[in-house]
Amino acid sequence: MKTKQNITIAPTEGDMTRIVYDAISNCGTDATISLAPGEYHFYPDLACEHYCFVSNNRHGLKRIAFPIIQKKGLTVKGSGARLIFHGEIVPFLIEASERIALEHFSIDWERPFYSQATVIGSDAKGVDLEFDRMAYPYRIEGDTIIFEGEGWENTPVDGVFAFDPQTRAPVHKSGDSLGTGFPDHISVKDLGSDRVRLNGTFPQLPKNGDILVMRHYARDSPGIYLHRSNDTTLDQVDIHHAGGMGLIAQFCENVAMTRSRVTPSGKRLFSTTVDATHFVNCRGIITLENCLFENQLDDPSNIHGIYTRIRSIEDAHSVVTESVHPEQYGVEIGFPGDRMAIVDETTLLGYAELEILEVERINGSFSKLSFKQALPKGIKNGNVMENLSWTPDLKITGCIARNNRARGFLITTPGKVVVTGNEISSSGAAIKISGDAKSWFESGAVNDVFISRNRFGDCCYGAPEWGRACIDIDPEIKNSKTNLACYHRNIRIEDNEFATSESSLLFARSVQNLKFLRNMVGPSGNDPADSNKTQAVVTEGCLDTEIDSTLRIARKTDDARRVEPCDN
Amino acid sequence: MKTKQNITIAPTEGDMTRIVYDAISNCGTDATISLAPGEYHFYPDLACEHYCFVSNNRHGLKRIAFPIIQKKGLTVKGSGARLIFHGEIVPFLIEASERIALEHFSIDWERPFYSQATVIGSDAKGVDLEFDRMAYPYRIEGDTIIFEGEGWENTPVDGVFAFDPQTRAPVHKSGDSLGTGFPDHISVKDLGSDRVRLNGTFPQLPKNGDILVMRHYARDSPGIYLHRSNDTTLDQVDIHHAGGMGLIAQFCENVAMTRSRVTPSGKRLFSTTVDATHFVNCRGIITLENCLFENQLDDPSNIHGIYTRIRSIEDAHSVVTESVHPEQYGVEIGFPGDRMAIVDETTLLGYAELEILEVERINGSFSKLSFKQALPKGIKNGNVMENLSWTPDLKITGCIARNNRARGFLITTPGKVVVTGNEISSSGAAIKISGDAKSWFESGAVNDVFISRNRFGDCCYGAPEWGRACIDIDPEIKNSKTNLACYHRNIRIEDNEFATSESSLLFARSVQNLKFLRNMVGPSGNDPADSNKTQAVVTEGCLDTEIDSTLRIARKTDDARRVEPCDN
Repeated sequence: MKTKQNITIAPTEGDMTRIVYDAISNCGTDATISLAPGEYHFYPDLACEHYCFVSNNRHGLKRIAFPIIQKKGLTVKGSGARLIFHGEIVPFLIEASERIALEHFSIDWERPFYSQATVIGSDAKGVDLEFDRMAYPYRIEGDTIIFEGEGWENTPVDGVFAFDPQTRAPVHKSGDSLGTGFPDHISVKDLGSDRVRLNGTFPQLPKNGDILVMRHYARDSPGIYLHRSNDTTLDQVDIHHAGGMGLIAQFCENVAMTRSRVTPSGKRLFSTTVDATHFVNCRGIITLENCLFENQLDDPSNIHGIYTRIRSIEDAHSVVTESVHPEQYGVEIGFPGDRMAIVDETTLLGYAELEILEVERINGSFSKLSFKQALPKGIKNGNVMENLSWTPDLKITGCIARNNRARGFLITTPGKVVVTGNEISSSGAAIKISGDAKSWFESGAVNDVFISRNRFGDCCYGAPEWGRACIDIDPEIKNSKTNLACYHRNIRIEDNEFATSESSLLFARSVQNLKFLRNMVGPSGNDPADSNKTQAVVTEGCLDTEIDSTLRIARKTDDARRVEPCDN
Repeated sequence: MKTKQNITIAPTEGDMTRIVYDAISNCGTDATISLAPGEYHFYPDLACEHYCFVSNNRHGLKRIAFPIIQKKGLTVKGSGARLIFHGEIVPFLIEASERIALEHFSIDWERPFYSQATVIGSDAKGVDLEFDRMAYPYRIEGDTIIFEGEGWENTPVDGVFAFDPQTRAPVHKSGDSLGTGFPDHISVKDLGSDRVRLNGTFPQLPKNGDILVMRHYARDSPGIYLHRSNDTTLDQVDIHHAGGMGLIAQFCENVAMTRSRVTPSGKRLFSTTVDATHFVNCRGIITLENCLFENQLDDPSNIHGIYTRIRSIEDAHSVVTESVHPEQYGVEIGFPGDRMAIVDETTLLGYAELEILEVERINGSFSKLSFKQALPKGIKNGNVMENLSWTPDLKITGCIARNNRARGFLITTPGKVVVTGNEISSSGAAIKISGDAKSWFESGAVNDVFISRNRFGDCCYGAPEWGRACIDIDPEIKNSKTNLACYHRNIRIEDNEFATSESSLLFARSVQNLKFLRNMVGPSGNDPADSNKTQAVVTEGCLDTEIDSTLRIARKTDDARRVEPCDN
């Protein structure tokens, strides 16, 4: 079959999946698929199928609308096309490809995977809701609400999140499930006329008119999944919704997202069901530039590697290692030639580096790695490993992140990180630099982070676990104060403006060479400050810190606040 | 790496999975892996992983203990070795291989996927049970019993089956779930001391001492899965249990199972959770010889093809066809060169044959088939297709099938079928020859069936839907009486002995050339005859029948019964 370089698709009624599939199949190298303006509908029925071990989402056999697999040079040019998805389908899979460009279109779902309703009453025993039942069809059986989708239905409501329709942000201090965390099941009562009562004692009662977003779907249908692909660009791609993350990339080199938006459509107060973007074991440079991330039900971005845990020493040169977190199931550990750090799981300090000779994937949980060098002395089961060959530089600039549940940007990569000129407000920490080998197993001690000229709005107004300060550097290390070396290094936080009601601006654990200089501060005026937190900067187990003793005041207030760095 | 021809494995403590994996990996062509006598344990943790679209079980990513993939000539010689599996693992996958022989070992699970308990009381509102909790660990939460396995736990009890510990057979007329069918949930009450009450009004109350087998696991872990492999033999392989079918083969040529047994171990009254053996779209010859099939929770064997349903006519030479039944998901439709029949879905009569040029697998539900010939006139969406190139001959001889839930042998294949010298007793029909394109979509109008010198014991004593006669020929055809042609052809039932309490010996629909000759009959003495059924032979829409007018009496009784064939 002769391949083509230019294919134009115009929207027609009904399912476009096969037309798009044929177009992609027919593309040669350096081709363009142009989508004429208009609305395109995609259904899972005739979509191709691919098993995706997609990190931080749910692995499984996925139906794919745009299966861009083993392509070199392909541009999907949207001209503002609106791509509407129906049911369980992944809009884009880009795998084993190079130079793929997605341009100027939007992704949305006809019936989203979460539902929302308006609060019409609440008391000590429950909350009454009114649904737009056309938008969010449901039925009630017994004390259970069953949300009905296109080809799916979901029973458990395992989270509700209150949003304020005026600010479009999570309601101040409403936390997860109105302060109850994540109940397995919320019992309901049908009040008739599209009204439903949620039974339960909710510590943070919403007020009438608030919107409750209801979580009732797993991370099965992410928006754009990039896997082992180099030089991918997204420009002017609007992701209004996804049943999982908006963009998730793993083992990719160079990903740039520019002038794109993750933002709700229509009357919805939620965009993607979880993170807007997420990058796992990438390299080259990740660029997020002039993007908007709002109202996703989790973080705007998370950039990290993976700690896998050594299960057994096989011989002098090889180990079996385990992908511990269920959402890391099946994600590759590395490839021959990659450098792996061997890390003590309590201090998180690496003590050896080895080069992979061979990888035997045993199954999604376990892999046998053989190394060029002999294993270091003292290596033992329970130690963790980090792939040092897949760590990206990161540039986040000119972006707005706001109105989402959870945190802002989660940054764990030893590459060069520049976060400048952004406006960040989130119900948790605006920037979180963590790392752990006990729950999420997310690796990537930072080495060179420059956070400058950003404007931090209200932060940390959600559940306490979402962050203890606007910038929260909290690797999960047992003995950070007595360790000989720090986990993170070289973090400069300079010339930013904190226009926030949150009085804790920076928490930093185990950082060597931490600078917090020339930042300005002023309350946002939106929310009352948290009176329990008084110290603007707190450090723990840090070395070589340089912290301005006084914060300059920005706008509104004239109340100079003294910063007292304290290494307690 | 140099391959080996002879590898001997001895049992050691702990998990043998990696040792076996390495042995198989090291095998060259025409090799033998000898297992020394003893007990071998296999765990899923380090087992290799493979996505299996396994028909009539549940498709998914499976852990495999013996992954025999792309091997030519491999014998696994057991010397009576006992292979004990732990948790969710498939003992054997034989795929894309030739001349694989499994010899002289047994397969069992430490903790089976179903549970059983002894009835210690029953009344109009429930049944009280006592568990051997070491063998069948469980806990109770609220009104739900949660069975605990190795790496799994299962909540729903969606079926209970009463067995008589004296006869080891299903309790006469107890049916599925004591006459209630398959409730979604059976509520329970903890009585303490390993005793549990099942709440509910059960039409068929068991008596004290009866054993209830409880179904609480999907068909995820079949015992031996053969896929696209030729010339596979099993000799002296005992399958004591499997979390799914014991042996399931699809698209295989020549499978022989000899001197093998599917039979419970220890105090269990159940063997495999569903069919003992099952053959889908096989060819060559299927041989079941001198085997024992007992106490499996479904049929001893089912041999059939698949009707796929035409979804759309793509062009003059191609269609998109659908695998309708969920358990046929992902099973191949056919291969280039295969002959496909186009079949009217109401009459089940084929009206054209086409040769496949190309198969495009769209996903697990849909495939696009392109044919050498133009599509026939009148072909329309909803018509079904059957692969005529994958239909086996079948020889079942010297086998005993008994004490199982459901039916005996289900035979739908146009190949030459010989069923001789078997002893068959089942709670449904002993032999069922069906075919349908509306629920199971199991194809294979028979063409040459010879059933002779078998002894049929008690049959049809379970739920009515399991069969209306000892030999039940019931293709699901709307207008069997007015159709111009019959669905099945050439069935000879001769010289058998019916030692059964079931008075209906043969029901036959839509058979041309049906012979029922020289069969003997006599009650078993075990159970009262069903007084609602009086006619020994009933035919419907049959042509060219030859039926003895009098049955000879076998043993015990001297009451000659008159057979009145009736074509109503």
